[in-house]
Amino acid sequence: MNYPNGIKKLKPTFNQKHIDYQNRGMNLEHDLNSTNMYYIEKEKAFIYKKPTPIKLVKVDYKKGRINEAYFEMPSTTDYNGIYKGKYIDFEAKETINQKGFPLINIHKHQIEHIRNIDKAGGVCFLIVRFTKMNETYLLMSKPFLEYIDNASKSVLPISYFKEKGHLIKEKFIPRVDYLEIIDSLEEFK
Amino acid sequence: MNYPNGIKKLKPTFNQKHIDYQNRGMNLEHDLNSTNMYYIEKEKAFIYKKPTPIKLVKVDYKKGRINEAYFEMPSTTDYNGIYKGKYIDFEAKETINQKGFPLINIHKHQIEHIRNIDKAGGVCFLIVRFTKMNETYLLMSKPFLEYIDNASKSVLPISYFKEKGHLIKEKFIPRVDYLEIIDSLEEFK
Repeated sequence: MNYPNGIKKLKPTFNQKHIDYQNRGMNLEHDLNSTNMYYIEKEKAFIYKKPTPIKLVKVDYKKGRINEAYFEMPSTTDYNGIYKGKYIDFEAKETINQKGFPLINIHKHQIEHIRNIDKAGGVCFLIVRFTKMNETYLLMSKPFLEYIDNASKSVLPISYFKEKGHLIKEKFIPRVDYLEIIDSLEEFK
Repeated sequence: MNYPNGIKKLKPTFNQKHIDYQNRGMNLEHDLNSTNMYYIEKEKAFIYKKPTPIKLVKVDYKKGRINEAYFEMPSTTDYNGIYKGKYIDFEAKETINQKGFPLINIHKHQIEHIRNIDKAGGVCFLIVRFTKMNETYLLMSKPFLEYIDNASKSVLPISYFKEKGHLIKEKFIPRVDYLEIIDSLEEFK
């Protein structure tokens, strides 16, 4: 797009940088947020992304302004909510890896959480997008934990997603219709 | 406690101030967090407080340090999770008001969320502590919404909590055993 001279300056530089960073590897997050918004509008499900936990260090409470803070490790998964009266809980990740999903992306506390939710009878899963192939898979907690508990490899191979998981077809709206997969599963009928 | 001269200086001042602020009116939050930790340890329920949503403005991503950010309005309630396979969702508030709970403390989006979860079949409620009397009540979404939809008053009177809600007895451990109330309700048996 061609702008007349100077017009671009209307946008502050830091904001531009911020937006670029936010978009880096966050397309799945964006697609999931719009999918969840669609579900909410249709009153189909109420599932939200949890805010990123942040450790506050310096805060000007009068101005409501945070002057120093750090990102913290989340102790649970990123998304949860309710669908058809059931508790839904999942983690979503993108990877540029073409062979599989590096397990370093899911930390110990999150695996513990997935195990707890699975035992408690929640509908728990991972959504992983392989960005190079533009393929997005849903993998239920049971086969995920089975792999974690039995394999010594640090990468969950894409073949495992193809075999034990479910490819989520990309649609125009909703973008990532993961509840369609949940609906198709025998155990939730 | 008596400290020898100088020892107190070991704690940085801003940290001290920060802690004081955090504790101001946050005893209920503290009690609920320890109660939820207790439930998790006993594998009774998996309920967590969502992090406060924060709008990032200036971030040094190399250092993982946030240099400017602002608190945002939450669009849902603060706590959710799973208990006995059911989706649990609630908001917790303290008030120094002795007559009732000022409804300004629950904003429009949160009321909409409570309405959605109630309709979707989730176990949804408010926990309100009246700090002057040191009484903590659980009020289910249905009587709460009934009040909101029919009363023009901006304060939910304490008499309404006594009549339609449930006093949560204070215990040593867990501090605020709100699941005991849920267990006692006919509709969740």
